[in-house]
Amino acid sequence: MKKLINAIDAVITEQMEGMALAHADLLRVNLEPKFIVRADAPVADKVALVSGGGSGHEPLHGGFVGMGMLAGACPGEIFTSPTPDQMYACGLAVNSGAGVLLIVKNYTGDVLSFETAAELLHGDGVPVRTVLVDDDVAVKDSLYTAGRRGVGGTVIVEKIAGAAAEAGYDLAQVAELAQRVSISSRSMGMALTSCTTPAAGKPTFELGDDEIEIGIGIHGEPGQRRMPITDADAITTLLAEEILDDGAYTRTVRSFDPDAGDWVEQTLTSAPFQPGDRVIALVNSMGGTPASELYTVYRKLAHICEARNITIARRLIGAYITSLEMQGCSITLTRADDEMLRLWDAPVHTPALRWGV
Amino acid sequence: MKKLINAIDAVITEQMEGMALAHADLLRVNLEPKFIVRADAPVADKVALVSGGGSGHEPLHGGFVGMGMLAGACPGEIFTSPTPDQMYACGLAVNSGAGVLLIVKNYTGDVLSFETAAELLHGDGVPVRTVLVDDDVAVKDSLYTAGRRGVGGTVIVEKIAGAAAEAGYDLAQVAELAQRVSISSRSMGMALTSCTTPAAGKPTFELGDDEIEIGIGIHGEPGQRRMPITDADAITTLLAEEILDDGAYTRTVRSFDPDAGDWVEQTLTSAPFQPGDRVIALVNSMGGTPASELYTVYRKLAHICEARNITIARRLIGAYITSLEMQGCSITLTRADDEMLRLWDAPVHTPALRWGV
Repeated sequence: MKKLINAIDAVITEQMEGMALAHADLLRVNLEPKFIVRADAPVADKVALVSGGGSGHEPLHGGFVGMGMLAGACPGEIFTSPTPDQMYACGLAVNSGAGVLLIVKNYTGDVLSFETAAELLHGDGVPVRTVLVDDDVAVKDSLYTAGRRGVGGTVIVEKIAGAAAEAGYDLAQVAELAQRVSISSRSMGMALTSCTTPAAGKPTFELGDDEIEIGIGIHGEPGQRRMPITDADAITTLLAEEILDDGAYTRTVRSFDPDAGDWVEQTLTSAPFQPGDRVIALVNSMGGTPASELYTVYRKLAHICEARNITIARRLIGAYITSLEMQGCSITLTRADDEMLRLWDAPVHTPALRWGV
Repeated sequence: MKKLINAIDAVITEQMEGMALAHADLLRVNLEPKFIVRADAPVADKVALVSGGGSGHEPLHGGFVGMGMLAGACPGEIFTSPTPDQMYACGLAVNSGAGVLLIVKNYTGDVLSFETAAELLHGDGVPVRTVLVDDDVAVKDSLYTAGRRGVGGTVIVEKIAGAAAEAGYDLAQVAELAQRVSISSRSMGMALTSCTTPAAGKPTFELGDDEIEIGIGIHGEPGQRRMPITDADAITTLLAEEILDDGAYTRTVRSFDPDAGDWVEQTLTSAPFQPGDRVIALVNSMGGTPASELYTVYRKLAHICEARNITIARRLIGAYITSLEMQGCSITLTRADDEMLRLWDAPVHTPALRWGV
């Protein structure tokens, strides 16, 4: 294992310390328990977005803390859910009174921890809501979660909902919008190589020199299938068609309702993509694939969308939700309306995403 | 070899096509000969910065084309200098009459091609100057160049000189400033792994499972030495001390003087870093190292600088000058005065670097 790390049990702490030293104007870190908050938190009268999850997916989530995006982020150990006490402490630190929206990627551990945190915050009088992101079309049900996994759509949700919070939407409005962006997003990823967690010291999975994994999860968990290595156009077509041909997807989502003081279930349906749609496209590196290669993927994706009369209205090309040093890519498409595009364009200032300021 | 590419001889063309599709608001690409220019080039009354070099170092240089940075970039084949006809055509495309500054990384092939291009442009009546970047403290003279190689300092030169051009500095002023930033910059890199060029299909060099290379070049060319893998703090200390302990470095630089219509030689000296200096720090991924690991490097670098009473006034942490998918990092420090910091902070809008807009 070759990594730029020191002691294995200090990896996350030292990365957080590095972030604090580099971005003191944007964020503060707390190490006991671990969370990262906006430097100016709590921001008066603004809803605070908190997300979190296992580390190893940077810049998600800590790199998205700042003006116009997350108020707080809770990093777990690598590929391991953070604990409810982190989320609870982080929620208290960022709540201005306007409430906290917890953005939860759909993994069993994350869901359970955030549910406990939501109840703790509610018990303390903090207005709290939750939104689930489950955009990965590769698999339904897995070792890691029931239903679809939460992947690249999370980046889009955090940007748009963050802009809405900054614009003064109230908690119910931000939550409704975030859930709408979530169900408008579909993603699929692939791996050229495995990754190695510091604690394991060896690759998470084995992949032959001439094999790739289609539908890979962001923890290196199995995807749809393995196949011989092929070219970028064929890989892009595979990923894009799974996303674009995915039918209506209906699931029941539990979310916390602060008015009822309890969990409510909603049945939500993601409508398929259609000609005439405008989308935000994320072409994402799994960490070890350089940006140059992503442009070849984007080129083919643009051609595929054009042929289907789908307009890529905005795009993000780079490493935004990663799996350590894994090589490979993922594609996320989010059907976007005028409101979402306007909020997408709104200023953002975080370590990993910045524009308009 | 596993990469997201199609036909090997189409790699650069397709990446450029992808950039054109993704960033039509920022840039235009020309494929015969290959160059990338600002979408709004030529910009009236503004000096135009043109750089270029072998591909494989993305986002350098094409990812830095846009408002406040480069007017044009000329990508060669991977790790291969572009040709004078590319630079000549690019220079003509971006020249508004205010002239063109060619930013040249110190590699023999780049230097020769840019010299020919400068003479061709001058012959066509284009006011042209050149600036050399030679900031790599790892080696003096190598297979690739006489003197020090040009590496991460190039990013800093392009940002600051680009802001100066945008602010209306004339050609002589931009050139003088760019040369001053160049000699105020020192860099050093290291590799955890090799990289593989598509044409070769196998690693550029062999590195044992427990070995790292200190002082690596951005083409995988040999560095200072190999050593057993060690921790991030030790690696950061090695790189930072080479940079911070480097003495006065004097060299003779040829640059084109449009008034004389000929090449002039200047003797330039880089002064050593000293307590009280303010610096811009670049902690750079060689391509395959994820941003998370760079924060551990930044953490140690910040401690080292603090102990020497050197203030990191600005910093950039990410993949800005890469070697395909190589894992490893480099550190660049640029001694910065008020003018440089003000220009650093000025708005920039390129695919890879954006703020203030």
